[in-house]
Amino acid sequence: MTHVEADPRLPIIWITREFRARPARLLRAHTDPDLFAQWVGPDSMQTRVEHWEARTGGSFRYLSVRGDESYAFYGCFHEVRPDRLAQTFTYEGDPDGVALNTLWFEDLGDGRTRLRTRSLVDSFETRDGWLRSGMEAGMQDGYRKLERMMDE
Amino acid sequence: MTHVEADPRLPIIWITREFRARPARLLRAHTDPDLFAQWVGPDSMQTRVEHWEARTGGSFRYLSVRGDESYAFYGCFHEVRPDRLAQTFTYEGDPDGVALNTLWFEDLGDGRTRLRTRSLVDSFETRDGWLRSGMEAGMQDGYRKLERMMDE
Repeated sequence: MTHVEADPRLPIIWITREFRARPARLLRAHTDPDLFAQWVGPDSMQTRVEHWEARTGGSFRYLSVRGDESYAFYGCFHEVRPDRLAQTFTYEGDPDGVALNTLWFEDLGDGRTRLRTRSLVDSFETRDGWLRSGMEAGMQDGYRKLERMMDE
Repeated sequence: MTHVEADPRLPIIWITREFRARPARLLRAHTDPDLFAQWVGPDSMQTRVEHWEARTGGSFRYLSVRGDESYAFYGCFHEVRPDRLAQTFTYEGDPDGVALNTLWFEDLGDGRTRLRTRSLVDSFETRDGWLRSGMEAGMQDGYRKLERMMDE
């Protein structure tokens, strides 16, 4: 179960989900471009990574593709460390919108990890627009694929 | 005159100042590491750039040094474009604190530019801590040096 919550005080989306994987393995599914491309995004889309350097000070760019449709996303990795990823994120169709995403990998023991994501943007309007955009459905699809990958 | 304002609704610091320079020249003082090191920070400190790649997807790291004291700052450049810089910013002494800084270079004509900076952090506590930290005095020193550089 993925828990998605709009912060009541700040333009933040909180997303929480537990996975049957150790933190290092779940982190790798977020930093290895081949693994990442296999799970991210809606089931109906394919991911094509154009640039990927998942290290502190690196950056990324990928396309979400369905037939002739293509949507580009890019950002930079502020910091990559075993318990936390901090990165920026922009959808190229809205180039002025920048999210600061922080992902915490909390070891629950017994080979389980709680992934907590905080997506901070610059206004409540932007935040609520993201929530209305269908981003949540795509994220749920993605996390189901990630869960299957971690269960293998 | 530098105008510094704590946003009433969001954990944001707004900083506004006009310079006698065209946007491209003022931008260069933010992207060229030699120029940047000459003006940033308090008058009592020297800046030593350790890493610098001011392009979309690049990153930076610099030290602020006074005698034996040394403070490190780092981040990544989310996007560098003629009218706007978007970058992350962390003081290494507080590695969990990440600011998302956006700088707009607004052409006022007659060789003048309004620089508007928005510094977005994840809580009001963090924001108010930055305002109390003496960051404003260092920034005022820095902007005076930048102004002198632009007047030359």
